[in-house]
Amino acid sequence: MLIIKVMSGITGNTKLMDLLDEPVPGVGTYEDFNTIDWVREKSKDRDRHREITSKSKLSTPALLESISDAFSGWLLMLLIGLWSGALAGGIDILAHWLTDLKEGLCLSGFWYDHEHCCWGSNETTFQERDKCPEWQSWAELLGGSSVGASAYIVDYLMFIIWALLFAFLAVILVRAFAPYACGSGIPEIKTILSGFIIRGYLGKWTLIIKTVTLVLAVSSGLSLGKEGPLVHVACCCANILCHLFTKYRKNEAKRREKYAAAGVSYYFPLKTLWRSFFAALVAAFTLRSINPFGNSRLVLFYVEFHTPWHMVELVPFVLLGIFGGLWGAIFIRANIAWCRRRKNTCLGRYPVLEVLVVTGATALLSFPNSYTRMSGSELISELFNDCSLLDSSQLCGYITYSNTIPDRPAGPDVYTALWQLALALVFKMLITVVTFGMKVPSGLFIPSMAVGAIAGRLLGVGMEQLALNHHDSAIFKSWCSPGADCITPGLYAMVGAAACLGGVTRMTISLVVIMFELTGGLEYIVPLMAATMTSKWVADAFGREGIYEAHIRLNGYPFLEPKEEYGSKALAQDVMRPRRSDPPLAVLTQEGMSVGEVEAMVADTDYSGFPVVVCQESQRLVGFILRRDLVISLGACNARQRQEGVVSASLVFFTDHVPAQPTSGPPAVKLRGILDLSPFTVTDHTPMEITVDIFRKLGLRQSLVTHNGRLLGIITKKDVLKHMAQMANRDPDSILFN
Amino acid sequence: MLIIKVMSGITGNTKLMDLLDEPVPGVGTYEDFNTIDWVREKSKDRDRHREITSKSKLSTPALLESISDAFSGWLLMLLIGLWSGALAGGIDILAHWLTDLKEGLCLSGFWYDHEHCCWGSNETTFQERDKCPEWQSWAELLGGSSVGASAYIVDYLMFIIWALLFAFLAVILVRAFAPYACGSGIPEIKTILSGFIIRGYLGKWTLIIKTVTLVLAVSSGLSLGKEGPLVHVACCCANILCHLFTKYRKNEAKRREKYAAAGVSYYFPLKTLWRSFFAALVAAFTLRSINPFGNSRLVLFYVEFHTPWHMVELVPFVLLGIFGGLWGAIFIRANIAWCRRRKNTCLGRYPVLEVLVVTGATALLSFPNSYTRMSGSELISELFNDCSLLDSSQLCGYITYSNTIPDRPAGPDVYTALWQLALALVFKMLITVVTFGMKVPSGLFIPSMAVGAIAGRLLGVGMEQLALNHHDSAIFKSWCSPGADCITPGLYAMVGAAACLGGVTRMTISLVVIMFELTGGLEYIVPLMAATMTSKWVADAFGREGIYEAHIRLNGYPFLEPKEEYGSKALAQDVMRPRRSDPPLAVLTQEGMSVGEVEAMVADTDYSGFPVVVCQESQRLVGFILRRDLVISLGACNARQRQEGVVSASLVFFTDHVPAQPTSGPPAVKLRGILDLSPFTVTDHTPMEITVDIFRKLGLRQSLVTHNGRLLGIITKKDVLKHMAQMANRDPDSILFN
Repeated sequence: MLIIKVMSGITGNTKLMDLLDEPVPGVGTYEDFNTIDWVREKSKDRDRHREITSKSKLSTPALLESISDAFSGWLLMLLIGLWSGALAGGIDILAHWLTDLKEGLCLSGFWYDHEHCCWGSNETTFQERDKCPEWQSWAELLGGSSVGASAYIVDYLMFIIWALLFAFLAVILVRAFAPYACGSGIPEIKTILSGFIIRGYLGKWTLIIKTVTLVLAVSSGLSLGKEGPLVHVACCCANILCHLFTKYRKNEAKRREKYAAAGVSYYFPLKTLWRSFFAALVAAFTLRSINPFGNSRLVLFYVEFHTPWHMVELVPFVLLGIFGGLWGAIFIRANIAWCRRRKNTCLGRYPVLEVLVVTGATALLSFPNSYTRMSGSELISELFNDCSLLDSSQLCGYITYSNTIPDRPAGPDVYTALWQLALALVFKMLITVVTFGMKVPSGLFIPSMAVGAIAGRLLGVGMEQLALNHHDSAIFKSWCSPGADCITPGLYAMVGAAACLGGVTRMTISLVVIMFELTGGLEYIVPLMAATMTSKWVADAFGREGIYEAHIRLNGYPFLEPKEEYGSKALAQDVMRPRRSDPPLAVLTQEGMSVGEVEAMVADTDYSGFPVVVCQESQRLVGFILRRDLVISLGACNARQRQEGVVSASLVFFTDHVPAQPTSGPPAVKLRGILDLSPFTVTDHTPMEITVDIFRKLGLRQSLVTHNGRLLGIITKKDVLKHMAQMANRDPDSILFN
Repeated sequence: MLIIKVMSGITGNTKLMDLLDEPVPGVGTYEDFNTIDWVREKSKDRDRHREITSKSKLSTPALLESISDAFSGWLLMLLIGLWSGALAGGIDILAHWLTDLKEGLCLSGFWYDHEHCCWGSNETTFQERDKCPEWQSWAELLGGSSVGASAYIVDYLMFIIWALLFAFLAVILVRAFAPYACGSGIPEIKTILSGFIIRGYLGKWTLIIKTVTLVLAVSSGLSLGKEGPLVHVACCCANILCHLFTKYRKNEAKRREKYAAAGVSYYFPLKTLWRSFFAALVAAFTLRSINPFGNSRLVLFYVEFHTPWHMVELVPFVLLGIFGGLWGAIFIRANIAWCRRRKNTCLGRYPVLEVLVVTGATALLSFPNSYTRMSGSELISELFNDCSLLDSSQLCGYITYSNTIPDRPAGPDVYTALWQLALALVFKMLITVVTFGMKVPSGLFIPSMAVGAIAGRLLGVGMEQLALNHHDSAIFKSWCSPGADCITPGLYAMVGAAACLGGVTRMTISLVVIMFELTGGLEYIVPLMAATMTSKWVADAFGREGIYEAHIRLNGYPFLEPKEEYGSKALAQDVMRPRRSDPPLAVLTQEGMSVGEVEAMVADTDYSGFPVVVCQESQRLVGFILRRDLVISLGACNARQRQEGVVSASLVFFTDHVPAQPTSGPPAVKLRGILDLSPFTVTDHTPMEITVDIFRKLGLRQSLVTHNGRLLGIITKKDVLKHMAQMANRDPDSILFN
């Protein structure tokens, strides 16, 4: 609402206001890499809502508009759910096919993956479900034979070549079309949800390229998962669909609610929770009708264990928790050190080469070991599964004396499997550190869970054999009688996976919920809780940041941790600017300044906003004006109303009423419309801990500091973050954005 | 920190400050039925924490104290979990025993309930687990016969007599020893968690009486549950145990975190969530070792359905949702109307009579119908259960042609059961309205779920028979072939229960989580979500308040809804006091007022706090002082330092430095120590929607209102609530407390 008034008397006032009371385009928007003002966005939306409601009483079309406005949120969630569910299903199917393509081809149709190829075959027995004549390995296709050293080498080479091809395509596509499509996206989305703006991060190119390259990256066999990137994909869908509805297109806060509902439920009010419900419902439907897991259940790894656990087993569960915590802490440090090295040395200049080298190494090392050759989710699924009698897997190679399952000493197959698993564990731990952060889409859930599941299964089999051979010892006597199947190695794998995931991501309650959703095992809540809590404690002892927070910090994003405890006794006056040695705060006065003076002040400083005071002497605060709004308004007024006689000498007024002027002077510029009349203030004696709390809870961009009613200074979100970095002995200049 | 200074020169200043720098007892505490100041409580705790941390570097005992302080939170949660878990188990066992006592007695030991009595018997078959010679009904014990009309009448009479006895004991105990023990306690706990103080509500008498009377009330057969009161019991345990630790005894905010962890996770930061985790763990352990459900599972009604559901069934599920929403809306209106009637008419003067009449009517009407005679949780459990071949229950009286379960036409037993269920539905709906709110402990979960489960089962059996008789119709043809068991009436019962619970309590996401925990059925998330969401929509259309919010409003507690949308365009200046016609705001000046003047101002007004300004002319705000702190400090200074010469003419100073005085005058009183130097302020132009948001998110008690740096007025939580009541066309005077 920019109002330029040619003063010809007080009566002209209202008429001119009406004529010019149209918004200047751009006022109220934000620049890239800046933080939004939550309070302003929310009240903008409430104004819009009120306007529609009051109009709806006047006419039928307006009433219909109001109803469609109310339902647009639900419609949007429906569309987001459908679209992102369909994408997730499609990515899953494609990734399966491409992964199997590395090993061979289906003769009955090249578009079948290994499993579906053999489903259609008549010669498949239940025992060897994955062997059928229709599925031919590359050695069979190219050399005609499936046995012997040369066939093995052909398969090995084809495996590496396909992996390199997929990885090369992925990294090239990311670099050429959408640099934002790399990584997991979770750190950036957390920052965006907290109010930061990164233009294009959730755009259509990012969506297309991330979807395609995610399939390629997963298929290439790299040690990465697709859950994190799928959250990014869902947020892209949300963002693109938001542009169909005015309500969301024009409001940064409302749009973020949808991102959160689409991705993670985080930071938002109860209504959003209900809506994300709805999205989950629709996504579940879509997933169900596509049915990528082929078992008509909505859970990923459905497990059923047939023995309950015993209290004594909490000891190994806690040990798994400690392992998970240590691995989490070490992984975060190593990965961050590696990423920093990539950023600061010449390594960062050859991302394509880096991806190719890592993919080559991964393929080379993973092919000989069947546990690394299979995909991460297959591995986890195999490790979670309990052995039934019919199970042909190596891990179930127990010696069976009778036709009953219980009391099974491990056979040579199991020992081979254990060795292979131990090697796979070391390999996965090392390769994941260098993989996460490369310029391809990469998630962390599956690799972290795989590491934990391997460790858990190893410990589980160990415990099982220990119990078998020491039935009479004091520990096992009371609950594990000979012949009973008292220890479930699959449960250990599940607990280990949860512990490692908790150590790496530090997700709180949500982790156990996710584990439920992934496994459906509701009875094992106590083992899971014991392990994840231990893991969190151990990992927190080495540093409180999870991997996503560490990456946010590495990139210098302005993210105010909701959980970080603040221990300093500093007051607002110690953090605010100007400091004691600085020049005084740049303020505008509500009357008496000319357009030229204002323009000079804007040009001389780079602050993103200016307080407006009654006069320089009293420093009594009137309001706050954003630099961007001020520049746009003055610019527009220069361009549009030059003919109306606004010159540099024109006076700028922020007051309610412009005093009558001498008719000879140039016309005045009235800018009260873009002035924020309810700026946030704290007193200079407010402890910083309270100030930080206010910034967090209200999502502020800045707060003014007063003393006995006089304006003293200003604290921005960047100041708060810098101060907190200083308190934690980190480099305050690592905070890059405002 | 009250400091009284006898001015003998500036040098004496610091010495005297040190001497008198001890806290006056009572400063910083709150009166009954008042709201705490979250910001102050939190910074008090941070100060304490910092002090312990800084001391811990000096000596070993201090270090140990610091460690024990850090672990006291976990120890406390462990104790709360153990205690409340044990109480919950004990209540469950006792209630079972007393409930069975209404029907008969165990000859092998009067302390056995029906189930355990027959467990010990040798003559029990699996088919008729609840029939054994050791268990004798009252007719058998008193009359010697268990058949015939006279035996029935004896049983009937004994049933009513026991019920009346239990209910009488419960209501008498509540009235005599702990009036706060009645009701569910959830509305009050919600209010307490939001910062309100009700002394004794979580005290030891409430705990003892609530535990005892809960057993009696449940056993009396009234239509009430024990889940809500158990939350109250857990909060009482938390409160009592908090008094063992200084950290929690002295801090209202920290204590509330524990209540929340003990009861519901609500309103609190992530750390608390982790701790409530821990409490759940320990409570689960305790429950597990007591094992009241006798089936080694941690879930209450374990269900396993053997058929998946079909998309078409969403139609009846949504119908159940509509039923749940309508029932919720009607129940809330009817119950509130009845409670208001009880409050305002002579009905409220005879609570004992009321309880006896309702109990008598309940017993009289419920005995003849087996579905109302059994306890609410047994009923729900029976309705949730799917019929297996061996099931002897009436509801499973299908006509079986062959020895397979599927394709079962309902037999006469099923039709009888349906009629009884329909009567039970009407009875439960009516009696629950008058039961909830009586002066005995009473929860709503079980009765609400029972209503929904009955409705669901009825619809489920109806659908089943419909499908059976119309296999060829277009609706069923594609998915329900003859001979297949395609509809699970138990699932309908579960969905109905969730819908009714949702309609009554309006619990959001937590409801579905609770349903999972109660049933372990993770695969039925979509039916549950569809029904609960429909139920919420339908119920919200008739009024947005859940039953707990309605009761909070009925009692006039100051509770700021986290979800209520605020639609008005009012500004802070429209809500603040003083209004335009009122006398000006009562303020203290930072210097120049005498003790007598301050005391006169305190005596003339009843405000709970006073702003302190630089001087009356400028109205520039210095800080805020609470009435209670001011009264206590002036009182203490009168009592203790009279000898030092403080008289009514002594000047009161809130400034940092007291100016040098003539030695002849009386000594000055310095009160800066109890002055809050960082009061919250908003400008007069701040929209009320933002102000309400600030009050909610920061837990404020009051905020001062300024204009251009001048103090204009004050807004308290009560003002905000009154304003919101006015906006919603409710009586603003229904807000009773501050």
